Amino acid sequence: MTKFNELEKGGIFGKGIANPYGKFFEGDTFLKALATSPDEKVSVGTVTFEPGARNNWHIHHDGYQILLVTDGEGWYQEEGKAAQSLKQGDVIVTKDGIKHWHGAKADSWFEHIAITTGTPEWLEPVSDEEYSKL
Amino acid sequence: MTKFNELEKGGIFGKGIANPYGKFFEGDTFLKALATSPDEKVSVGTVTFEPGARNNWHIHHDGYQILLVTDGEGWYQEEGKAAQSLKQGDVIVTKDGIKHWHGAKADSWFEHIAITTGTPEWLEPVSDEEYSKL
Repeated sequence: MTKFNELEKGGIFGKGIANPYGKFFEGDTFLKALATSPDEKVSVGTVTFEPGARNNWHIHHDGYQILLVTDGEGWYQEEGKAAQSLKQGDVIVTKDGIKHWHGAKADSWFEHIAITTGTPEWLEPVSDEEYSKL
Repeated sequence: MTKFNELEKGGIFGKGIANPYGKFFEGDTFLKALATSPDEKVSVGTVTFEPGARNNWHIHHDGYQILLVTDGEGWYQEEGKAAQSLKQGDVIVTKDGIKHWHGAKADSWFEHIAITTGTPEWLEPVSDEEYSKL
């Protein structure tokens, strides 16, 4: 039994569509675009992860990303550091150039708002071996 | 009886502190700072409004504001336009130079995330006469 199954139907801002960046993710994830800043530099959207789903390691170049966890439980990890457990209300700021990944826990749906600027560089997946150790 | 009274104890991200910009608001409001972008240009926080609370008319200069409604019911109005009713999941983008206000409905607590850049210019309050017509 997984936790926060109600997210399968979408949280506060809705579930949106199958993530158009899905090839850079493991598992099923969903993207609801919420807004773009008038200067078109900052995008705001909600990402919903099924249990076990996560993105590849990646870097935000010439920008940053702010994550606001709206529901469920997940993980955030920067290269060379321990993974951090995330729950509703947690906030993460990823600086320019930092290699990292984020996603759901194996037994829980997970949802966060992402405030993003810059250009992502998508890298290798988080292996099942790495992920299963969490 | 007012609606969404549970917000008196804080929503997803917590209630925070008495709003330090309270002199530009009518009624009691609360601010929970969530993040500042690494370039220090964009701030992210949650604002919680007691029923009837609202900010003065104001303008964001050299910037913008994105509102993500997380709970409760409120109003958003741009000068010269009708007020828009807001509920959980609604999103507002206020462009540079637009005179506007936002706040709770008279019978409801209200909470939104605000993603803000630029410099606010605070103007006159929304009068009780204007507000009571909504």
